[in-house]
Amino acid sequence: MLAETLAAIRPADPQALADARAHQDRLTKPRGALGALEEVAVRLAGAAGVCPPPMPEPAALAIFAADHGVHARGVSPWPQEVTTQMVANFLAGGAVANAFAAQVGASVTVVDVGVAADLPDAPGLISRKVAYGTADLSRGPAMSVDQAVRALETGIAVAQDLIDAGARCLITGDMGIANTTASAALISVFTGADPADVTGRGTGIDDATHAHKVGVVREALRVNGLPGGTGPSDALRALAAVGGFEHAAIAGFVLCGAANRVPVILDGVIAGAAALAAAALDPHVTGHCVAGHRSAEPGHAAALDHLGLRPLVDLELRLGEGTGGLLAHPLVCAAVRVMHDVATFDSAGVTEKPV
Amino acid sequence: MLAETLAAIRPADPQALADARAHQDRLTKPRGALGALEEVAVRLAGAAGVCPPPMPEPAALAIFAADHGVHARGVSPWPQEVTTQMVANFLAGGAVANAFAAQVGASVTVVDVGVAADLPDAPGLISRKVAYGTADLSRGPAMSVDQAVRALETGIAVAQDLIDAGARCLITGDMGIANTTASAALISVFTGADPADVTGRGTGIDDATHAHKVGVVREALRVNGLPGGTGPSDALRALAAVGGFEHAAIAGFVLCGAANRVPVILDGVIAGAAALAAAALDPHVTGHCVAGHRSAEPGHAAALDHLGLRPLVDLELRLGEGTGGLLAHPLVCAAVRVMHDVATFDSAGVTEKPV
Repeated sequence: MLAETLAAIRPADPQALADARAHQDRLTKPRGALGALEEVAVRLAGAAGVCPPPMPEPAALAIFAADHGVHARGVSPWPQEVTTQMVANFLAGGAVANAFAAQVGASVTVVDVGVAADLPDAPGLISRKVAYGTADLSRGPAMSVDQAVRALETGIAVAQDLIDAGARCLITGDMGIANTTASAALISVFTGADPADVTGRGTGIDDATHAHKVGVVREALRVNGLPGGTGPSDALRALAAVGGFEHAAIAGFVLCGAANRVPVILDGVIAGAAALAAAALDPHVTGHCVAGHRSAEPGHAAALDHLGLRPLVDLELRLGEGTGGLLAHPLVCAAVRVMHDVATFDSAGVTEKPV
Repeated sequence: MLAETLAAIRPADPQALADARAHQDRLTKPRGALGALEEVAVRLAGAAGVCPPPMPEPAALAIFAADHGVHARGVSPWPQEVTTQMVANFLAGGAVANAFAAQVGASVTVVDVGVAADLPDAPGLISRKVAYGTADLSRGPAMSVDQAVRALETGIAVAQDLIDAGARCLITGDMGIANTTASAALISVFTGADPADVTGRGTGIDDATHAHKVGVVREALRVNGLPGGTGPSDALRALAAVGGFEHAAIAGFVLCGAANRVPVILDGVIAGAAALAAAALDPHVTGHCVAGHRSAEPGHAAALDHLGLRPLVDLELRLGEGTGGLLAHPLVCAAVRVMHDVATFDSAGVTEKPV
């Protein structure tokens, strides 16, 4: 399934990109007056292969939840059971992601891809547990490559089901106590940045814990012999060695969106780390992604720079769950709607400024 | 009508502010994890005088259109008739503001407060022309104080009608070729900044035209003896001397929102200049305002700094019409919805991080 997905991914369409740029300049507004939103619309035209691109509605958020063996190293002040508790909160509609999804009209799907507890069946919960959390990435590989592929293919399957059910925009979400540690390790591997520069304070840790967390990330890279090579199999091995099940699943989710030419709005640092893995498997995937926001985590900016993506929302959010991606959805829709609805200088009889 | 509106404006309610801050910290998210959106929700609670504040929906955009005598000085490359043509475009639903309003579910009202042409009656157009454009602000006062008050009261009346019809959030919009010149003059007067630091390139001018535009703003201040004093009557005199009819109307629109405790999302540099005038009439007005975005115009940042407002969207838009305010509306709604919908640690059974 992974191979077929990768085979289906196409680069941005040059004709659609050119058509979209030319169309932007005919609309009744000064050239470039919509700033970064013009480029979003142009990129989505290239990704879709048609100008104007389809409206990215309705949107579907998938929250991939998993636990992390590295939690035992004391990298987070939150107890591991909060992952399970927050899954219940998502299913009950009580989390911030639910409130934001309701505001922007997105559906919410929760996927257990590796939570360290048995979760009761519930409407809206997809159970695809690969294991009861990863192994401790600072002692050896967090997952086997086989496990990583199973998580990736879970993300692909979830995305395909959402698209088949009508979603025209995918939004990544995550839940996993300690997953900013795995994200920092992935970002360090895929961007070449030093762990000290890409390891943040997650949901809130003091200086001593932060220094310890940086050390744990360094250990993880050393123990796992990273960075290794730069081919696709090296990318899979790195993802397995220091990623989380949710990172692998999100990478698959992103790849499947790209394979279907359905745009994917990336949430924060966890999604950024996962997208780096996806882009290492196929670099054309980034043409189908929009960076929803820039989180307060330092590694996120490094990931976005490496991916060549500019975030739309920049409000110091550091929550995850897909919250930053959800907030960006109306902005992405607005950017695309301009291409559909706005009159041209000719059609509206508006005098164009002499260039 | 202006006096009654000013008399009704209240400062932020300290108890509602305190309640909102405490409530934010009980919600199932790390403290501060929603970044700048937490402060938006807290400020709106203070403005409304109740926690949580009412949902700021539905929203109503009012686009105040007017022309400017200073256009004759060659400060814009666009012909003056584009104001009239764009009013027709708004009424036909073909402008970017229409597309964005449709995306976020806001109504659109267009107000002729001083366009330099007779406009045919049309559904959605409110005709309240004070004059056929202002006089040239670089030769003397752009308006009489009496005209400025008429435009202010037009903004008040439009806002009150929208609120009476059910609007629970007001969004400012503007259309007026050459209105960034008047905005720069107002911002210079009210912030004390040098004209060279707050005069931008509007919808697109070259270096020579920009230098000329700065000179025109300097002339305007000198000819009109500005800055003068700092009292409310001085504020009215300054607004009349170098503002536009749309600036005065937007100032009234903002004051009326504040008087009704209905939040006002400010669009870009024109709204920022108008809000400075409103805040000079009553400083409590800023507690009822949200800065929708930061435009590419340099004067806008100076205006927002002076008002103490942080913009939500920062994507180099420079279009006006209310486009930046419209884009911010879903973000403001999301911030407030969190206060209504999200579970607390206690109610959801989620373990709180030891502080």
